[in-house]
Amino acid sequence: MQQGHDYAPVMAPTKPVCEPGEFVIAAAFADHGHLFGMVSNLLAAGATLGYVYEPDEAKANKLLALDPAAKRVDSFDAILQAPDVHLVAAAAIPNLRAGIGIRVLQADKDYFTDKCPFTSLEQLEAVRQVVLATGRKYAVCFSERVQNEAAEHARFLIEQGTIGRVLQVIGLGPHRLSVNHRPDWFFNKVAYGGILCDLASHQVEQFLTYTGNQDAVITMARVANLANPAHPELEDFGEYSLVGDNAASAYCRVDWFTPGGLRTWGDGRTLITGTHGMIECRKYVDLARSSFVDNTVLLVNDTGEHRQSVTGKVGFPFFAALILDCLNHTELAMTQEHAFKAAELSLMAQVIADRARV
Amino acid sequence: MQQGHDYAPVMAPTKPVCEPGEFVIAAAFADHGHLFGMVSNLLAAGATLGYVYEPDEAKANKLLALDPAAKRVDSFDAILQAPDVHLVAAAAIPNLRAGIGIRVLQADKDYFTDKCPFTSLEQLEAVRQVVLATGRKYAVCFSERVQNEAAEHARFLIEQGTIGRVLQVIGLGPHRLSVNHRPDWFFNKVAYGGILCDLASHQVEQFLTYTGNQDAVITMARVANLANPAHPELEDFGEYSLVGDNAASAYCRVDWFTPGGLRTWGDGRTLITGTHGMIECRKYVDLARSSFVDNTVLLVNDTGEHRQSVTGKVGFPFFAALILDCLNHTELAMTQEHAFKAAELSLMAQVIADRARV
Repeated sequence: MQQGHDYAPVMAPTKPVCEPGEFVIAAAFADHGHLFGMVSNLLAAGATLGYVYEPDEAKANKLLALDPAAKRVDSFDAILQAPDVHLVAAAAIPNLRAGIGIRVLQADKDYFTDKCPFTSLEQLEAVRQVVLATGRKYAVCFSERVQNEAAEHARFLIEQGTIGRVLQVIGLGPHRLSVNHRPDWFFNKVAYGGILCDLASHQVEQFLTYTGNQDAVITMARVANLANPAHPELEDFGEYSLVGDNAASAYCRVDWFTPGGLRTWGDGRTLITGTHGMIECRKYVDLARSSFVDNTVLLVNDTGEHRQSVTGKVGFPFFAALILDCLNHTELAMTQEHAFKAAELSLMAQVIADRARV
Repeated sequence: MQQGHDYAPVMAPTKPVCEPGEFVIAAAFADHGHLFGMVSNLLAAGATLGYVYEPDEAKANKLLALDPAAKRVDSFDAILQAPDVHLVAAAAIPNLRAGIGIRVLQADKDYFTDKCPFTSLEQLEAVRQVVLATGRKYAVCFSERVQNEAAEHARFLIEQGTIGRVLQVIGLGPHRLSVNHRPDWFFNKVAYGGILCDLASHQVEQFLTYTGNQDAVITMARVANLANPAHPELEDFGEYSLVGDNAASAYCRVDWFTPGGLRTWGDGRTLITGTHGMIECRKYVDLARSSFVDNTVLLVNDTGEHRQSVTGKVGFPFFAALILDCLNHTELAMTQEHAFKAAELSLMAQVIADRARV
């Protein structure tokens, strides 16, 4: 067993890729707290927060505190009409995200939404048309990869060929329910779209990234409410499997059953099997270690068993790349089709699971 | 985080449950090395090895060395005709196991076979009829539970209610291929029955055990040869999912892709999600720890995160229970129907996967 010095992360933590004022963003609709991370990471990569639209006073102030340049505006239209805004970041209630995004694109700005980007295939199709018509980006923050250093390090290891060809990706996404601290929309199926549409879109995106697939077929999809009868529209458990065009497969489980005694919100894992090795990401906690460790990557290949703690070593390179993509009209951070396909497959899994349940 | 002193294993290591000569067994057909463990554990629990039938000299001698009382015989009939033999343990080529077992039962002896117990549903049906007619036991060694202390400890924790109601079981069974050290039948689909029939029968059995289900519906099954074109009948990858009668589900992946650098034959895992906690069994290795540790059980529930190393603390209580079941005509070790159902579901998964592949 080696400790894996050969595999030390080489990606540098995020540095600004543009000058102050060169890439102005606006932040709107902080219905999900994910927006704070999305904006913070864009700012760390060089963006300037110009405007904030959010009716809730506390949330608005929290956003304004991120950048002294930020001004609060009292209508979303004010952001759409601001000529200096290049990109609008938002984390609205999921079923409203597409409609907001269409307005952003039609105002000739790029959009950066929290996942899930859509709650129906119809929304996806409508947005596809608007992207084609406007040439603007409908970017998605799949945070369980692009804001997780273990997940990004796994991508790097795969790209370096350390486990050969990827054959399978298992993604486990347990979450803490915190039932008394959730907004009403959290328990409304139409609003959040279903557990596969919402949570599992992360795992679909990781599958496409790690296996290099452009498309896949869903082979199983299931949702259930197993232990929360007081919230009948909550899906507290979901799972799917799929097989990609290159024969690599995926299995995903998402749930709201994180136990009370876990030291963080969820024991998110990714287990990747290759022809010549395997990788396990213990993304948010390495269970029962005396000190709390996140971003643990375990690599086993022909050279031995390697443990790497990558917190602070990888950074979140997605955000700098997204800014450059917007400025340069490139697709290096993530292609539009990749984001759409991740959403499409998770929506299709949700549709299949919903039909089976009725 | 607590180290879990409340959850110390209480099952004692195996002790003899009968006097020498009280429960005489025979060992035959050591085509798979599993037979040595099966016999050794029966002997540790009190059995006496009376007879050995195995044409291969080295294998026969290895069996004879387990008990000075053992005599080698030169025909299987000699075992069937020996009046003092109570049970015949065997690990024949898989597609021959049912036929051998039928002869054993019809000779009015109990049978204890390595898994997989059958390679076709027709064999299972034939054996069901013989069990009914003879009243004898067709017992199966699902070694990844009954010879694994972590797996047995997980069962104990579940029975104690430490994670509430079990909602899901994920079983991962990667194995080292060792392609140059396998007999011909290993690469012959008719002989070994397929990867789901063979390897995955362990995970089906564990699912039934941990969830308490009597039956389940298979929702996905897939086999493939992903990276071994020189052995076209080898299935190097298999996966299935199923849903039990009580809505608990299972996902299983089995494969022959253990990397060369792993310190043991496979990183077998079981991840169990309950309404009030989760259990992870790292059965054969806890990756990249500086000392080699097997039988690690991680328990997370409302009381915290607990790590338990249970090697030497749990034993293999199945074997003593099996002897008592044979002597007393009980079914405390494992019911006949449970063993049959585990086999039936893995065979059905294999059939579904085979059909999808053609």
